[in-house]
Amino acid sequence: MSNFGFLNLRVVNSYAIAYREARSAVGASAVLKNAVEYREVHEAIADCSLVVGTTTLRSRQRHQPLYRLEEGARRLRKKLGSHRVALLFGSEKVGLSNEDLSHCHWLMHIPTGEAQPSMNLGQAVAVCLYEIIRSGKLPRKGAGEKPASAGQLERMTTALLETLQSSAYLGPGATSTATAKIRRLVRKLQLSAADSELLLGMLRQIQWKIRSKE
Amino acid sequence: MSNFGFLNLRVVNSYAIAYREARSAVGASAVLKNAVEYREVHEAIADCSLVVGTTTLRSRQRHQPLYRLEEGARRLRKKLGSHRVALLFGSEKVGLSNEDLSHCHWLMHIPTGEAQPSMNLGQAVAVCLYEIIRSGKLPRKGAGEKPASAGQLERMTTALLETLQSSAYLGPGATSTATAKIRRLVRKLQLSAADSELLLGMLRQIQWKIRSKE
Repeated sequence: MSNFGFLNLRVVNSYAIAYREARSAVGASAVLKNAVEYREVHEAIADCSLVVGTTTLRSRQRHQPLYRLEEGARRLRKKLGSHRVALLFGSEKVGLSNEDLSHCHWLMHIPTGEAQPSMNLGQAVAVCLYEIIRSGKLPRKGAGEKPASAGQLERMTTALLETLQSSAYLGPGATSTATAKIRRLVRKLQLSAADSELLLGMLRQIQWKIRSKE
Repeated sequence: MSNFGFLNLRVVNSYAIAYREARSAVGASAVLKNAVEYREVHEAIADCSLVVGTTTLRSRQRHQPLYRLEEGARRLRKKLGSHRVALLFGSEKVGLSNEDLSHCHWLMHIPTGEAQPSMNLGQAVAVCLYEIIRSGKLPRKGAGEKPASAGQLERMTTALLETLQSSAYLGPGATSTATAKIRRLVRKLQLSAADSELLLGMLRQIQWKIRSKE
């Protein structure tokens, strides 16, 4: 990360002992020292308006667009001027879970060979960040409508889920599959911050109406 | 290496204990198990006809062309059809020495930021190999004149050094600087295998002549 000028590391549910040791090690980088810990993915990405997941080609069923790193990095770079972007990596052994992936707007994969598709985490991060900076300058912050943050989208997801339950579209105990489906749906809408607040207000009003009739 | 389909690892003067442990570890890759150990760089690259070194931008004085990884990988790919190529990495702490670098035809560097120009070795290897395979297919073995191997070039270097000494162009104890200079000179010639043998024969004849007069 420091090699390629990326400074903000957020660590979710880390293996506490290894993390503490790495962080307190002599020569630990500023990136590691300034890393922020979170318990859940949705907390770590709450202020981001584009969330890109990384995966291998052979992984589970996919519900989002998947791009080869070259193309993915090109799309990501285009958004850097107007979005706070989170690039999500899973643990080295199991990668990102379906729940993790449901927070992503789209996914990208490194073009590894079939013989050994799964990469060492540090090397995968290095290759992805290299590809992002490869062509030179990154765009600066631009104008335009402010996109919804992951936190806003997650509040809207929750409100929509609750509304669908209280309207009996979904049963009372939403399954994780249904939750992930709704979460992906909300992210596909590419809402602006203002529109997501507007829709959230509508959903809350609908919920209030339904409950007041019970 | 396995991720990107590179199979031939050659290790020079490794730190024996760490190397043995890594190699015998459960899950060690085929690349590591099949790695070959050498004592000296010139032995490890003897059968290669293009030797490319990796370096950081801020490193010592340079005597060879230095390309940004993107351009270097493009040049390297073009040679893969006709050359056996060695890509040389130094130790993480000190990189390649001047002696190591003198074996290289040219050098390339990863475009890292100034704040942290020096990379983790495994990550540097991953980024370089990714860039080499990035654009897709690698060329297959082609025709054309067979280039001189590093072993042939090193034999010619030695013969030239000895000739220069016996002709009193150089003093009897060649300094490492002079040796490196001659080595680079020979590599700049881009000799074919046949021509390097031809020149070697000439040098040996010259030496014989000089010595027979002493």
